[in-house]
Amino acid sequence: MRDGAATRQRMLEAATEEFAAHGIAGARVDRIAAAARSNKAQMYAYFGSKDGLFDAVLAEHFTMIVNMVPLDGEDLPGYATSLYDAYLHHPQLVRLSTWSRLERHPTGDLFGDGADHNAHKVAAVATAQRNGFVDPDMDPVDVLSLVTALSMAWSPASPLLTASPADSPAVHERRRHALAAAVQRAFAPAA
Amino acid sequence: MRDGAATRQRMLEAATEEFAAHGIAGARVDRIAAAARSNKAQMYAYFGSKDGLFDAVLAEHFTMIVNMVPLDGEDLPGYATSLYDAYLHHPQLVRLSTWSRLERHPTGDLFGDGADHNAHKVAAVATAQRNGFVDPDMDPVDVLSLVTALSMAWSPASPLLTASPADSPAVHERRRHALAAAVQRAFAPAA
Repeated sequence: MRDGAATRQRMLEAATEEFAAHGIAGARVDRIAAAARSNKAQMYAYFGSKDGLFDAVLAEHFTMIVNMVPLDGEDLPGYATSLYDAYLHHPQLVRLSTWSRLERHPTGDLFGDGADHNAHKVAAVATAQRNGFVDPDMDPVDVLSLVTALSMAWSPASPLLTASPADSPAVHERRRHALAAAVQRAFAPAA
Repeated sequence: MRDGAATRQRMLEAATEEFAAHGIAGARVDRIAAAARSNKAQMYAYFGSKDGLFDAVLAEHFTMIVNMVPLDGEDLPGYATSLYDAYLHHPQLVRLSTWSRLERHPTGDLFGDGADHNAHKVAAVATAQRNGFVDPDMDPVDVLSLVTALSMAWSPASPLLTASPADSPAVHERRRHALAAAVQRAFAPAA
């Protein structure tokens, strides 16, 4: 049993790398099995199919994807810049989410399971609106969408430029500064 | 010759649909050939490989992707809301860009060809900065990254919610309004 659990865990880790790099269609089950020092038959015994394995990888990283950074409604600029850093150091989480978006859920909620996984964040924004930290005239759901979008300006899903750990510290700092300023102004209550 | 050009054009159109839906790894050359009323041998004769066909599709849509909406530096809110509408009606352009990001260019510039395809947009932002329409303290490159990111809050690459033409007109209008307000405030010069 303990050997089985260890094998299953190695498969999940190898699958995380493979899916983050290549997506669902591009992932190769034989590469995953080899990297996990196992074989395809055992992989199918545990996870049923390549799609089942992707489901298990998403479930494993679900909490990290949704709660990569805790949202403090009184400090949305800090939330956004912490996400900038999180994407830089954990690009595979953004890549897994984006593959899931493209390959499984072209419209609507990313997770498409009917649950509202961001309800606690929306509630935190709403509290910050009542307490005078965030413009109360915007729907809190829209505030969350917009601040998340800003945080992703240089993410692994960016349509322009994706930040790299190899970029100079001064460039990272310039971007974080612009991001914090934009978030601060975009959602501040009218003076 | 004219038949050949028509066949090549049908292949490009079928390939655009297929790549936008399934990405490079997920695309099936036989489906593309069938949809174009042709065959794989002819497809390879024209484009060399599946990757060559994707290159041709990107080249065909390049101008539309980069210049989906002209950037008016004096009206960044209008630029962002026009992009919201463009993504809604041409989701395949965002999807092609995002597949290219994930499958080919994990970091750096999206097109990865050494050319600065957004130089004219950066110049338009810089002019608007000099003329007092946009905060001159932000790097114009960062302004472009941030306003583009905001415009994509509900795009086909969104990590939260992707807008659909089936959403109610009131919801689209609420989002456009929040987007325009956020852009207006984020980049306005200090009062």
